[in-house]
Amino acid sequence: MTVGDVTTQGPQPVPGSSAGATVERFLQVRRLTDLLASRLSPEDQIPQSMTAASPAAWHRAHTTWFFEEFVLGRLPGYTSPEPVFRFLFNSYYEAVGPRQPRPQRGLITRPSVAEIGDFRARVDEAVVAALEAGRVDDRGLELLELGCHHEQQHQELMLMDAKHLFSHNPTDPVYVHRAPDPAPAAPAEQDWLDVVEGVAQVGASDPTDPSDTTGRAGFSYDNERPRHRVWVPGGQVATRQVTVADWKRFMADGGYSRPELWLSDGWAAVQAEGWDAPGYWRREDGAGDSAATDGSAAHGDWTTFTLSGRRPVVDAEPVCHVSFYEADAFARWAGARLPTEFEWEVASAGWRIADELDPDRCHPQPATERTIGGVWEWTSSAYLPYPGFVTEEGAAGEYNGKFMSDQHVLRGGSALTPAGHTRPTYRNFFPASSRWAATGLRLAR
Amino acid sequence: MTVGDVTTQGPQPVPGSSAGATVERFLQVRRLTDLLASRLSPEDQIPQSMTAASPAAWHRAHTTWFFEEFVLGRLPGYTSPEPVFRFLFNSYYEAVGPRQPRPQRGLITRPSVAEIGDFRARVDEAVVAALEAGRVDDRGLELLELGCHHEQQHQELMLMDAKHLFSHNPTDPVYVHRAPDPAPAAPAEQDWLDVVEGVAQVGASDPTDPSDTTGRAGFSYDNERPRHRVWVPGGQVATRQVTVADWKRFMADGGYSRPELWLSDGWAAVQAEGWDAPGYWRREDGAGDSAATDGSAAHGDWTTFTLSGRRPVVDAEPVCHVSFYEADAFARWAGARLPTEFEWEVASAGWRIADELDPDRCHPQPATERTIGGVWEWTSSAYLPYPGFVTEEGAAGEYNGKFMSDQHVLRGGSALTPAGHTRPTYRNFFPASSRWAATGLRLAR
Amino acid sequence: MTVGDVTTQGPQPVPGSSAGATVERFLQVRRLTDLLASRLSPEDQIPQSMTAASPAAWHRAHTTWFFEEFVLGRLPGYTSPEPVFRFLFNSYYEAVGPRQPRPQRGLITRPSVAEIGDFRARVDEAVVAALEAGRVDDRGLELLELGCHHEQQHQELMLMDAKHLFSHNPTDPVYVHRAPDPAPAAPAEQDWLDVVEGVAQVGASDPTDPSDTTGRAGFSYDNERPRHRVWVPGGQVATRQVTVADWKRFMADGGYSRPELWLSDGWAAVQAEGWDAPGYWRREDGAGDSAATDGSAAHGDWTTFTLSGRRPVVDAEPVCHVSFYEADAFARWAGARLPTEFEWEVASAGWRIADELDPDRCHPQPATERTIGGVWEWTSSAYLPYPGFVTEEGAAGEYNGKFMSDQHVLRGGSALTPAGHTRPTYRNFFPASSRWAATGLRLAR
Amino acid sequence: MTVGDVTTQGPQPVPGSSAGATVERFLQVRRLTDLLASRLSPEDQIPQSMTAASPAAWHRAHTTWFFEEFVLGRLPGYTSPEPVFRFLFNSYYEAVGPRQPRPQRGLITRPSVAEIGDFRARVDEAVVAALEAGRVDDRGLELLELGCHHEQQHQELMLMDAKHLFSHNPTDPVYVHRAPDPAPAAPAEQDWLDVVEGVAQVGASDPTDPSDTTGRAGFSYDNERPRHRVWVPGGQVATRQVTVADWKRFMADGGYSRPELWLSDGWAAVQAEGWDAPGYWRREDGAGDSAATDGSAAHGDWTTFTLSGRRPVVDAEPVCHVSFYEADAFARWAGARLPTEFEWEVASAGWRIADELDPDRCHPQPATERTIGGVWEWTSSAYLPYPGFVTEEGAAGEYNGKFMSDQHVLRGGSALTPAGHTRPTYRNFFPASSRWAATGLRLAR
Repeated sequence: MTVGDVTTQGPQPVPGSSAGATVERFLQVRRLTDLLASRLSPEDQIPQSMTAASPAAWHRAHTTWFFEEFVLGRLPGYTSPEPVFRFLFNSYYEAVGPRQPRPQRGLITRPSVAEIGDFRARVDEAVVAALEAGRVDDRGLELLELGCHHEQQHQELMLMDAKHLFSHNPTDPVYVHRAPDPAPAAPAEQDWLDVVEGVAQVGASDPTDPSDTTGRAGFSYDNERPRHRVWVPGGQVATRQVTVADWKRFMADGGYSRPELWLSDGWAAVQAEGWDAPGYWRREDGAGDSAATDGSAAHGDWTTFTLSGRRPVVDAEPVCHVSFYEADAFARWAGARLPTEFEWEVASAGWRIADELDPDRCHPQPATERTIGGVWEWTSSAYLPYPGFVTEEGAAGEYNGKFMSDQHVLRGGSALTPAGHTRPTYRNFFPASSRWAATGLRLAR
Repeated sequence: MTVGDVTTQGPQPVPGSSAGATVERFLQVRRLTDLLASRLSPEDQIPQSMTAASPAAWHRAHTTWFFEEFVLGRLPGYTSPEPVFRFLFNSYYEAVGPRQPRPQRGLITRPSVAEIGDFRARVDEAVVAALEAGRVDDRGLELLELGCHHEQQHQELMLMDAKHLFSHNPTDPVYVHRAPDPAPAAPAEQDWLDVVEGVAQVGASDPTDPSDTTGRAGFSYDNERPRHRVWVPGGQVATRQVTVADWKRFMADGGYSRPELWLSDGWAAVQAEGWDAPGYWRREDGAGDSAATDGSAAHGDWTTFTLSGRRPVVDAEPVCHVSFYEADAFARWAGARLPTEFEWEVASAGWRIADELDPDRCHPQPATERTIGGVWEWTSSAYLPYPGFVTEEGAAGEYNGKFMSDQHVLRGGSALTPAGHTRPTYRNFFPASSRWAATGLRLAR
Repeated sequence: MTVGDVTTQGPQPVPGSSAGATVERFLQVRRLTDLLASRLSPEDQIPQSMTAASPAAWHRAHTTWFFEEFVLGRLPGYTSPEPVFRFLFNSYYEAVGPRQPRPQRGLITRPSVAEIGDFRARVDEAVVAALEAGRVDDRGLELLELGCHHEQQHQELMLMDAKHLFSHNPTDPVYVHRAPDPAPAAPAEQDWLDVVEGVAQVGASDPTDPSDTTGRAGFSYDNERPRHRVWVPGGQVATRQVTVADWKRFMADGGYSRPELWLSDGWAAVQAEGWDAPGYWRREDGAGDSAATDGSAAHGDWTTFTLSGRRPVVDAEPVCHVSFYEADAFARWAGARLPTEFEWEVASAGWRIADELDPDRCHPQPATERTIGGVWEWTSSAYLPYPGFVTEEGAAGEYNGKFMSDQHVLRGGSALTPAGHTRPTYRNFFPASSRWAATGLRLAR
Repeated sequence: MTVGDVTTQGPQPVPGSSAGATVERFLQVRRLTDLLASRLSPEDQIPQSMTAASPAAWHRAHTTWFFEEFVLGRLPGYTSPEPVFRFLFNSYYEAVGPRQPRPQRGLITRPSVAEIGDFRARVDEAVVAALEAGRVDDRGLELLELGCHHEQQHQELMLMDAKHLFSHNPTDPVYVHRAPDPAPAAPAEQDWLDVVEGVAQVGASDPTDPSDTTGRAGFSYDNERPRHRVWVPGGQVATRQVTVADWKRFMADGGYSRPELWLSDGWAAVQAEGWDAPGYWRREDGAGDSAATDGSAAHGDWTTFTLSGRRPVVDAEPVCHVSFYEADAFARWAGARLPTEFEWEVASAGWRIADELDPDRCHPQPATERTIGGVWEWTSSAYLPYPGFVTEEGAAGEYNGKFMSDQHVLRGGSALTPAGHTRPTYRNFFPASSRWAATGLRLAR
């Protein structure tokens, strides 16, 4: 299938590429968004199920706006034929001007979904024409590359947000049809990897720095830079992620009802939200109408809502949709802790990137050893600037740095992360109570 | 135009009708909903712009559910092919069972808008078949009639809600294209009608009461009954509604900044909401992008958002989208007061019902004397049961009575009220702070 | 006991009185406030336990401010030695100027409780001196009388608020020591009084109207006037209030868990607040530390918090601390309804006023037939202006009229209402969800 | 003055002390609380001005409860004569049992302020008796020392909370009378101290660790331990704190209206809270009634509320009552950044501890070079556990660790920090939006 080819192959690095390769890279990213959106009806693309989520139509338009604002907008004489889109589809770039209030993104039904498709096509055409005409300068090419990564992030967000939306519908909508997995083996064993105490280098090199000869010159966001030294204390990091089976033991041991396991804010969240299991889990009562979509859940079983409908939870899979608070409490219960982001980066060096987005699955595979992917992994690190951090130049710099308070770093990638987007220095971040991303954890001690 | 025929002619009374007339009446109501919805795209039909509003798709499905639940559900052996719709599209009938939480109606994207159309068609077909087969008993016919009136109410709500939704879109969406009105004449003069002190009969007769020979035997809701005596003090009621020109004088005289004119809760609302004009009004700054849709508003002019886009306000029209608090404050400023609902009913006897819904206009005409319609009129009366009030039998009784606290009675009808739905005993009701209905006022003293 | 004398005797009417009688009347009211406050420590007088309540210190100062503002303020050349008190102790009189935000009344610890006592003494002295010197004009005397009634209202509020405050303290504070009542007899029988259909006169006469020769010339608030005609439908009003024993039957029959008994807003309140019994009631688990103050409650018994600590509920007493929603649901459960305020006024003509405030008890007596008092009685009437209502002249008019929306009329008086303040035309009012006043009900049908 | 002696001298280290020294140390701490509370009336000690604050009476009782719970409670056969205090005055120790809801601490008026004094005296007597009888075991002595530091923290909180409470009173209450400062000199120059890149040791040694021979064996909280290595990048730290004069320049340059200077959450706070100056600052309009307490502020001047009433701001003083968001924005405006807590600890080694609590001043002195104290200093570090962090044993461990999410580290001490409590390894922490602590900043780059 063509789509599989696209996503399996993944985006290719830009540096040194001819215009043709850049065009190809750009269009691959754009086409994947279209593919992912094609399973959502116009109706599905409208609602904003919570303030932190966005409509699919908005994701599709906002990523397009980014290219129009930052790439086409640099071309001499360019003016947008639809200036109101600048207001509608700017997310939070204060420097660019006013914008639709975030909590009201779900009230925009015009332009229609089809018109947003036209907007995408128009911008694609203009970008490709500019590239082929050699009219995009070096900074424009950098911003184009940034825009491709930005769009990949929104591909994951679009899937997360669709799942969150569908989870409120009692008909358990199916985003992608998927046959039941064969009965999985027992969860992989978990081993511990020693991390040796000492100074380590972490973070990404600046690809434009001529003095960097390490070969670590791929794309990175500003928040991954500069590469710098840290002191890593000695410790051990688990070789696989925490699984559903592990989590059931935590629950069976009263994990959600023992305040001594929880951070103070975490315990408050447990009580306020009524958490007694990961996000999307539900204990079935065996009555037909609330059972898993494939009918296989018996009375008292736990199911979880997936992009293929409601399914029984699977012991061997990594636990998913847990908040930082839950991850932290689990680790304390297990007599362990979460790794710091630097331990994680050191420990995972050389591990395999596995389980990136398969648009025909959109769900984690069973956890395996010495891999990253499947679920994002909460670390114990707060999301803070690296020493010497400099934001991306211009309005495009309003991207990562302004969120550096009260967020928590996640490392790795997930089964919703587009192929090629997972990398060892990547720093994802969410507030401590977030559960709608595909978030799990790995222990350290 | 066929549509015009439908709505001009209006629904016909059922009592004594043959099955054919009942079918025709039923289908007329159903078709008007389809017509009104046909100007809304699938995207437009999804969002719920505030908790008090509902998506158009929901209105279309809920009104259909009503017929399935209360008419088809009475037929021996009837079972719904889509039982989950009972959960999704029940509004607040506790006796019927659980239902989708009201604030989450905008998260339902499946069934699709087309599938809701199929649902409507299927129920229409089944109702018509049952009627033609003579399988609907007398109570069923009563409930069918109730369902038609219920659907007419939702036709108005659907338009109100669409307007509220569109008002959040900076592109000023147009629901129905409408040419600018010709320059209107000055507002009609206002005169006062004397209401003589004494006992009056108000309310609707019970159409099933054989002892009633008054001929007042048309359909009425339970909350309009029983017809009963009240003591009406002597007074005067204005012969026309308060106009935009009147309201501008109130504003120019500091109406929104003088606490002594306001009820305590009203003044709190003014401050909390920042009210300084009726709902949907905006003072134009003359810059192109925020001017009225037809470009005719100059700097400093007031415009209002209509279902045909943003337009300059028109002096001769009745003021619209004012809350009870504003109506009350205006009356106090004018040295007058709001009429009680009984004064209103007595005074308006014999007045003409004008300015009901024209689907090609959806906006009030200039105010005229001795008419009702155009805008709903706030009264000073709280929405309370009449002496001897008995709720509709069965679950259908959860309709009017349960809202009889802290709501205010409006009388008349509006330019969004379907033809045939306006009547002198009708009691509409909204909370005191509501502004999204087409609400105006008439003075008394 | 002196106190008993004061309160048994009660305030005396002013009209026609000499300055000495006016002084005496004024000082009696003021002394009762002092007596009631004397059981509250300085600490007790500070907190505001919810926005709707006020600190006792504030009640004492606000009532004093009223006399300074409206009586002393009229005296030529009078200026307040403490102008900031005007800001601190104005309640909601917009015309007088800005004031301490209501939710922040509990943050005022200076002036101290003793200094507020000094303020009271200073104003008392000045008022008495002015009266004795004949410097208070007729309007001043009217406002003095209004101020006395105003202070009586605040005496009840001060007790209500103290009870609400103390109820949050796990030590069950005692406001007044009171011996357990002797075992009470069974509740009084309930009978029904016929109300004949027809025109009735209700409301208070204007004491300054020379044409009124009915003798109904006592003090009344503006909201009780004018006396006017209403049509009262025929019906029956219960001769005694609903008792604790009645309420237990309602509870035993699932009263708090059957939505069909409740107004829509009422059912929402039940669920949001978790109501399953009247305010202050608690089901004892028999463990020592949570039992009633006098130790007499057994496992499973209901107790209620009183101004003498926690006590077992008493079957023969009128039920107290129920909201309008609960009263309405109870009436529906009983196959009855609440009386309108006019039925109530007609039916209760000639009944005995019983069970006004006894400062040594502060708790209702068992319900008796054909009496009013003990608990305020919710009516079905919304709190609206009478026909021809005119607010009190000047800033003192910001008293009753501005609250005439979304409040419900209560009639009668309570065991916290100062002697002499209960009268047949009195219109008390609270929002439908209020439970901290001493509120009960009487049925009609 | 005796009190001055107490606080100038400061608490002395416990290890190795005889019972007499321990008693003396304990009583010194306890007496300072009594002194600080003695300026608050019973009324002043009751209100809780916001959820994050607590009543002074509660601080006095809670610190006493700590000794009863953790020191006396260890004595064989000890039972509290007032067990309900355990419920009332536990703060958040889940392991100890249920407790008064935090937002309702201001509703506790009984026990009275005098009875809380009796509680303090009773516990003091019992602790001293146990110490003198040698009945307190080693762990008990550790907990006693912890309790003394805990009480010192609450001394500062009690002053912060009193200031917050008084700031809501339009009479500008005075906590301590203080003569105006002499006209201060210009602010001290600011210099930069180089911090050399490399591995540094930070944190406190474990006083019970026999292998520690560094002499760093004073008291520390669990969150300051273990002492450990970090990599400190090279940089510079300012030698003095940011002053009021500096802050005025930031304000004059549009600091509060330029979103590009702010973290995203910070900008949201600016808009939601209407911040345009540090906490407690107010621009005077020159009218008499809102001017500074000493009458010296002219029209347009900025004043700030102090524990001696409202005063003009003083250029040479360190800016105080700024949130983390403001500190971060200021640093960005200045082309600098906040130091990390480790840079701070390295840079400040050897600096003088100045400007600790003087009960007769309670306000910062002008900023001086190479000192810490006066105001707490926001760092860029999130409050996280040190590598190898172990919480204090038992319920006393619910003290620091459970707050390690979404809080920000402050270092140093303030003019409200009791003498002897400021130390280089101390980690204070508050949420990013907090402004009621005495918080300022120092730049780094």
